[in-house]
Amino acid sequence: MKKYYPADSLKSPKFCGVRTFMRLPFVREIEGHGDEIDLAFVGIPFDTGGSYRTGQRFGPAAIRDASVMVRRYNPIQKIEIFEHISGIDYGDLSVVPGNIEETYRLIEEELTPLIRNGIVPIGMGGDHSITLGELRAVAKVYGPVALVHFDAHNDTDDSPFGLKYNHGTPFRWAAAEGLLDLEHSVSVGMRGSQYHPYEYQEAEEIGIKVITAEMMRQMGLPQVTEEIKKRVGDAPVFFTFDIDFCDPASAPGTGTVEVEGFNSHETLSLIRSISSLHYVAFDMVEMLPAYDHNEITANLISHVGYEFASIMAMHYRDNAPYLEMIRKNK
Amino acid sequence: MKKYYPADSLKSPKFCGVRTFMRLPFVREIEGHGDEIDLAFVGIPFDTGGSYRTGQRFGPAAIRDASVMVRRYNPIQKIEIFEHISGIDYGDLSVVPGNIEETYRLIEEELTPLIRNGIVPIGMGGDHSITLGELRAVAKVYGPVALVHFDAHNDTDDSPFGLKYNHGTPFRWAAAEGLLDLEHSVSVGMRGSQYHPYEYQEAEEIGIKVITAEMMRQMGLPQVTEEIKKRVGDAPVFFTFDIDFCDPASAPGTGTVEVEGFNSHETLSLIRSISSLHYVAFDMVEMLPAYDHNEITANLISHVGYEFASIMAMHYRDNAPYLEMIRKNK
Amino acid sequence: MKKYYPADSLKSPKFCGVRTFMRLPFVREIEGHGDEIDLAFVGIPFDTGGSYRTGQRFGPAAIRDASVMVRRYNPIQKIEIFEHISGIDYGDLSVVPGNIEETYRLIEEELTPLIRNGIVPIGMGGDHSITLGELRAVAKVYGPVALVHFDAHNDTDDSPFGLKYNHGTPFRWAAAEGLLDLEHSVSVGMRGSQYHPYEYQEAEEIGIKVITAEMMRQMGLPQVTEEIKKRVGDAPVFFTFDIDFCDPASAPGTGTVEVEGFNSHETLSLIRSISSLHYVAFDMVEMLPAYDHNEITANLISHVGYEFASIMAMHYRDNAPYLEMIRKNK
Amino acid sequence: MKKYYPADSLKSPKFCGVRTFMRLPFVREIEGHGDEIDLAFVGIPFDTGGSYRTGQRFGPAAIRDASVMVRRYNPIQKIEIFEHISGIDYGDLSVVPGNIEETYRLIEEELTPLIRNGIVPIGMGGDHSITLGELRAVAKVYGPVALVHFDAHNDTDDSPFGLKYNHGTPFRWAAAEGLLDLEHSVSVGMRGSQYHPYEYQEAEEIGIKVITAEMMRQMGLPQVTEEIKKRVGDAPVFFTFDIDFCDPASAPGTGTVEVEGFNSHETLSLIRSISSLHYVAFDMVEMLPAYDHNEITANLISHVGYEFASIMAMHYRDNAPYLEMIRKNK
Amino acid sequence: MKKYYPADSLKSPKFCGVRTFMRLPFVREIEGHGDEIDLAFVGIPFDTGGSYRTGQRFGPAAIRDASVMVRRYNPIQKIEIFEHISGIDYGDLSVVPGNIEETYRLIEEELTPLIRNGIVPIGMGGDHSITLGELRAVAKVYGPVALVHFDAHNDTDDSPFGLKYNHGTPFRWAAAEGLLDLEHSVSVGMRGSQYHPYEYQEAEEIGIKVITAEMMRQMGLPQVTEEIKKRVGDAPVFFTFDIDFCDPASAPGTGTVEVEGFNSHETLSLIRSISSLHYVAFDMVEMLPAYDHNEITANLISHVGYEFASIMAMHYRDNAPYLEMIRKNK
Amino acid sequence: MKKYYPADSLKSPKFCGVRTFMRLPFVREIEGHGDEIDLAFVGIPFDTGGSYRTGQRFGPAAIRDASVMVRRYNPIQKIEIFEHISGIDYGDLSVVPGNIEETYRLIEEELTPLIRNGIVPIGMGGDHSITLGELRAVAKVYGPVALVHFDAHNDTDDSPFGLKYNHGTPFRWAAAEGLLDLEHSVSVGMRGSQYHPYEYQEAEEIGIKVITAEMMRQMGLPQVTEEIKKRVGDAPVFFTFDIDFCDPASAPGTGTVEVEGFNSHETLSLIRSISSLHYVAFDMVEMLPAYDHNEITANLISHVGYEFASIMAMHYRDNAPYLEMIRKNK
Repeated sequence: MKKYYPADSLKSPKFCGVRTFMRLPFVREIEGHGDEIDLAFVGIPFDTGGSYRTGQRFGPAAIRDASVMVRRYNPIQKIEIFEHISGIDYGDLSVVPGNIEETYRLIEEELTPLIRNGIVPIGMGGDHSITLGELRAVAKVYGPVALVHFDAHNDTDDSPFGLKYNHGTPFRWAAAEGLLDLEHSVSVGMRGSQYHPYEYQEAEEIGIKVITAEMMRQMGLPQVTEEIKKRVGDAPVFFTFDIDFCDPASAPGTGTVEVEGFNSHETLSLIRSISSLHYVAFDMVEMLPAYDHNEITANLISHVGYEFASIMAMHYRDNAPYLEMIRKNK
Repeated sequence: MKKYYPADSLKSPKFCGVRTFMRLPFVREIEGHGDEIDLAFVGIPFDTGGSYRTGQRFGPAAIRDASVMVRRYNPIQKIEIFEHISGIDYGDLSVVPGNIEETYRLIEEELTPLIRNGIVPIGMGGDHSITLGELRAVAKVYGPVALVHFDAHNDTDDSPFGLKYNHGTPFRWAAAEGLLDLEHSVSVGMRGSQYHPYEYQEAEEIGIKVITAEMMRQMGLPQVTEEIKKRVGDAPVFFTFDIDFCDPASAPGTGTVEVEGFNSHETLSLIRSISSLHYVAFDMVEMLPAYDHNEITANLISHVGYEFASIMAMHYRDNAPYLEMIRKNK
Repeated sequence: MKKYYPADSLKSPKFCGVRTFMRLPFVREIEGHGDEIDLAFVGIPFDTGGSYRTGQRFGPAAIRDASVMVRRYNPIQKIEIFEHISGIDYGDLSVVPGNIEETYRLIEEELTPLIRNGIVPIGMGGDHSITLGELRAVAKVYGPVALVHFDAHNDTDDSPFGLKYNHGTPFRWAAAEGLLDLEHSVSVGMRGSQYHPYEYQEAEEIGIKVITAEMMRQMGLPQVTEEIKKRVGDAPVFFTFDIDFCDPASAPGTGTVEVEGFNSHETLSLIRSISSLHYVAFDMVEMLPAYDHNEITANLISHVGYEFASIMAMHYRDNAPYLEMIRKNK
Repeated sequence: MKKYYPADSLKSPKFCGVRTFMRLPFVREIEGHGDEIDLAFVGIPFDTGGSYRTGQRFGPAAIRDASVMVRRYNPIQKIEIFEHISGIDYGDLSVVPGNIEETYRLIEEELTPLIRNGIVPIGMGGDHSITLGELRAVAKVYGPVALVHFDAHNDTDDSPFGLKYNHGTPFRWAAAEGLLDLEHSVSVGMRGSQYHPYEYQEAEEIGIKVITAEMMRQMGLPQVTEEIKKRVGDAPVFFTFDIDFCDPASAPGTGTVEVEGFNSHETLSLIRSISSLHYVAFDMVEMLPAYDHNEITANLISHVGYEFASIMAMHYRDNAPYLEMIRKNK
Repeated sequence: MKKYYPADSLKSPKFCGVRTFMRLPFVREIEGHGDEIDLAFVGIPFDTGGSYRTGQRFGPAAIRDASVMVRRYNPIQKIEIFEHISGIDYGDLSVVPGNIEETYRLIEEELTPLIRNGIVPIGMGGDHSITLGELRAVAKVYGPVALVHFDAHNDTDDSPFGLKYNHGTPFRWAAAEGLLDLEHSVSVGMRGSQYHPYEYQEAEEIGIKVITAEMMRQMGLPQVTEEIKKRVGDAPVFFTFDIDFCDPASAPGTGTVEVEGFNSHETLSLIRSISSLHYVAFDMVEMLPAYDHNEITANLISHVGYEFASIMAMHYRDNAPYLEMIRKNK
Repeated sequence: MKKYYPADSLKSPKFCGVRTFMRLPFVREIEGHGDEIDLAFVGIPFDTGGSYRTGQRFGPAAIRDASVMVRRYNPIQKIEIFEHISGIDYGDLSVVPGNIEETYRLIEEELTPLIRNGIVPIGMGGDHSITLGELRAVAKVYGPVALVHFDAHNDTDDSPFGLKYNHGTPFRWAAAEGLLDLEHSVSVGMRGSQYHPYEYQEAEEIGIKVITAEMMRQMGLPQVTEEIKKRVGDAPVFFTFDIDFCDPASAPGTGTVEVEGFNSHETLSLIRSISSLHYVAFDMVEMLPAYDHNEITANLISHVGYEFASIMAMHYRDNAPYLEMIRKNK
């Protein structure tokens, strides 16, 4: 095992201990320790950006609670995760509930040191507005990054109710701020009723390729994998996962459910299928525990984080050349 | 936009205002205003007909609450709904809890004026017994209508516990009263354990074609579409949708769940696939909020109503010849 | 009955119809109609000010849903409410989720016309931050008003997390803006753990008398009544009621529960006991339905609104001289 | 121990076995076995009489589930219950959901044999409408009986929505049918908003003394005990307990909650205080499990049944003379 | 109908009566009555073996509650179940919460008489540890049996936290004790994160063939059917069904949910597809009602029991030769 | 502030960060650091001892989640807690679910070092069986201790279902093992139905004074305080608090609720009233989150821990002489 790895649930029962993601060590000291840490789960408990239900500020805590069920070996990817990477739970970033701009400043300020130390962050939201703050930090180190965006919504709205920033707008401004490598960015899973006929078109005009749920069902998931890979290529990637990509039956605990989504197998197998991309950061957002009575949403999103960790472990195991980009920061 | 259309959720947040279906105007004055109104959502909060769980009387309120999430443009049907039709929420019809016959009388009495004014009603139940009352009103204006019936159950029982009328019997009596164009009627989605070996046979003897869930899985959904279209043809149609057509995982909040049902994509895409039929009325029934803790059932059934509205908008956009039958009442 | 009054639940069952407070008519046209309307229930679905749980934006809808249980005659106050006043549900004010300053502007702008037409508003929140907006509108018409404030918390915090405005600060700024007649203002029910030893002292230094829960239990509720009356005197009063005044057992559905609160009888009888004060506006805040699984919080807060309406009806019945201040606007 | 008594929860854990009230034997054969059975818990799963929430048909099952927690010795009454009486769970009476008159016929028909065999029934509802059916059976054997009625409502409404029979009307018709010994009947606990100013007066005009919650708080519970005893005297008594007598905080799972009710200690100690009355039958009604998420309502109402059983055991232990009236049927 | 069969839900509503599985008679006297009874549902309310969530001790009660919805005719298998078999609910076996070894002794002791009387038991758990006790009883009569095991987990762990027996270990010890005909045993549905890379391999080394969920999706369900049939052949079979075989969306109410499971149709049709195997005993385990808020898990697992009963009825109808092995005990 | 104290919720919002009790630092290194730590919150996530509901293993996590609401200044005790004591969250002790004897060994082994370092532990359960393990550790350092025991049950059962150890027996064996200073021990709050007439008597014969809820109501709470103080005197005290001391309305989330309990004010004020006793250890047990849907139980029990911490802070502030006994270990 690498330096930091989860508690062994065959020795200490899963339900024991202060809750961290996958029972990883809770570590706050990272400056200068980047060589000992490859991956960090980072909570961003913010929900001022929510346009419908709120309470995503409790998302990180719920994800941590549910994640203790996740074990360390991924039998489909055939990887013993923490033999190849060292991972921590960094705790939460600072936020100011009610002040999105100040929160963006804090996210950027506090996330940057992790990235500068060569640690790949997996953000745990929080509503989707937080991703703009994360992208600012990521782009500061890596330059514009390709976006792989799984979601029911494009999140390229233009100022709903006069608001510049909320959870429906982050990628409009990320593009405008030059944080995205638009040529290689793709939004996947869009569906549901729309505010107007031009929502997908607007996202495409901004420069992000859109693959709707309807297109996905027509082309089949293997072809979706190919389309994503082709679009993204070798660009460094920020993978942002909104849990409303999934169907409400599989993930009721979120802010703006949309019917006709994907089940857990479709979702996770699609994530696994694009493991070869050159990821430098991840997040998973819109977990809302107040609507997740039986905890199935938290359980599912925890597995998204586990697949993300598995992917990074595979890259480290295989000594993927692109890791040089990350490692040089350590 | 036509005269009556929903609030704009990009200007006024979805969660604002007194709850009406899709945030449509609440309008009670319809006599003589049929030319200004094409579609009316109508609550029928009745549950005395329920044989197992009750509480469907709170169904219309729950549907209205959830429906504020639904937006006005349907990207799969490619229709901006309220550019083509004017729609209202009419509020609820009168009911007498505990007295099904009096309630049937009231439903018929109060629904008839809408139909006579050329307004297509979309009933929101309420247990499935209400459909008999609606059919009486519809048949009074249009004569016997074809039934397109999505459900897990045939609802052609004969006097359970000595009751003539309950939610398991409406189509037996609708047929007996001559309200149905049986030649063109079809029940789709039947499944689950049965009281006796002849349930499907009884429905067919009454004259309604039965397409069970098992048959649907064997023939595939495209073929189901064809079978329905072939059966119904050009007849005027009442589309009655029981939410237990869907699987309990997708729609737990109903009176008599049946396993092995359909998910939201299967359900809604099947509804979209038969958009060319000649609809004159709709309902969606058996919403039971007390068992819908995370509101996914209400969200799903709201989208059934939205697909119904989309279909009518398409007919109006295309100036479908059969609309003449409806418009002549205006 | 006066012009606007609730539906008769002995004729039309309580659960019928589009949801408004107590089944009152939903009326938006008030300009110039103040003579026909004495009281208006007004939703303010805003929760960006919440420091812990959020979701109070769904509070007005939940209050309306539960309030259909409330009947029109108050047997303790012996008043047939709507024989003496005409009341409406005005629907919701505009809000901008995520932007508290803009929302304050909108609350003030949209509430002022009601007050200017001599209509007494009963705000339905929403987190407690909204009261600052309401007070700005009220003070514009009536000048500084006495505050009768039932709550577990003083809500006179100074810039938590650097925020000027949130649900813990409204009365600090109301005082600073000169909206309050501090000499006659009182906060009642404070309790629970504190951020620092000077919380009550700070409120008193701002000028609001504080009666803590501990003091209330020591003096007994009859003496509390006397203390409030003595403090307030004949000043025009804004009564702001935070549901966390009540014990979590009686009102779990709120943002920041505090143990050792008051039960429904203690709460409502205390409200009834100060019916003689000269009220010009009311609100009831911090209803959070996502934590109110069995709807008892919504039911209780609905009765607060009903007691408020009863009090105003008593003043109208008795032709209370201070009403002149209100009536002159009509 | 007498012939029929509960399983021993120190030997067989409480949660084992098919659910019956207090883990009593499930016995259907009573004809001619009255000498072996003193008390029978009888489910009446009917809810067509509900005017607001429905689902009380699942009340008996929920009461049985929760009642397994109740043990056999009552330390306040100092009685080992089943050393003095033999008790069974009779299962449920027949009902016809949707047909109240037929259900009344069935209740009367099926309950009468128990009474005729000298078995004291404890009905488990079901909405309060069922009590009229029970009273018909009781009065057939014992003649008119005194009513001890704990409730938030008088249940003497006159034909709401044109309905003769529902859960708000049973005592109006019981009086009219001569089933009640009105001189000795009393309704206790009335409170809450009213349909009109004459509700209490109407009940008194029918002949039932009304002790409102407000009166109870003014006189104190010991005086309430005296008032009930004085009113009832030595008359044979039917004790009907509506769980909405209790406050929503203590009993949220019911059809029409009313604030300002009584907690579990006030309720149960008041029941214990009138143990000397001459009871011949009991019921406990309006249990609605769909709104009782944490099962506290079912737990509380189970203890009402246990106090009822304790009272009967005390009478048998003390060989109370009035039992002759019951025993002569055995 | 055979001697023991369910109540008729067209005569007596489903929700009436003391709860037994499918409303079957509750019968405890079986010694010497084996000729009158073919099938017995048997609760085993034990959860000390749970490694994560507990509360499965309430599983049998929840299954009974939900099973009243299940009707007697299986239209896919085309069998009127109780025309061919006589079935009872035997109630629960004795358990000692906190003492797994004593509970194993009791399960074996109390289950053996049923099997010795030629009654096929369908165990209702309880956590999966109970199956070891059941297998001991079954093997005592029939010798080693083939295991058909549907589950997300292999349950062949070796002493987690130093415990020999818990819900993750039963099949390791069943194999070691010689209770299994390993040549013909198969575990189906395994998936999810693993404690170490050798979990499937360990199970196979013990001798049980493993068909993972991933393999199932690759080969398709028809091929899975063939693989199971080929593996099991004509051996006498114990079918053990863990509800976590199903996806959390379909079955949230269980102890250790795993994403990427099977929906109700996949699950039940797979069970139906292997109806020709030579079953001598069944169980269905890991029902945990505290996490099953809307009762869909209990509903689904009830249908597993109904499919089991249907299969046995088909064998009896067809007079399957292997039944001789069962009948000779009668 | 002392070395270890909670995060400042006016700077960092309450909902931020990995969950520890009151947002205290998570510290595992205590050996030799006793001088820096006065108080430690210690989770003991064990529930094998539960005789009815289980799931108390998730109690510590739920208490930590809710405790973030608790602030640092206690205005009734007038104490800024962490100016006087340094406190940590130690995380959880090791447990073996299903093996109570091994768990007792682990509790004793792992708790002893804290006590030996002069740290006062506040155990967070877990079912009440754990207290025996804690008492073994405490008595090893301090000798027999007085028990102050708030509970609905005596927990002196003798081998229910043949089990020596479960959550109903700890004080029988603690007395037998000589861990208790029986002369100064007292159990407070007993109530509810009993297994047999001698339960209180048995506890008293073991040597623990019993003050039942009925006695408490007769004597009044001030007298209860006096009785406890008189009984306990100057003995070193272990305070064990079972949340079922409280009424189900205030604390539904526990294993064996009993009606007629105490509300939050009665409970906490009684705890405050006995602050002068010589405490050396505390625990709070039977928190069961699966039945605590709206989190009020977790909130209330968190305040018990806060009152415990306040009491210790008062002793440290006042330099209470008995602290010498604790300090000498540092």
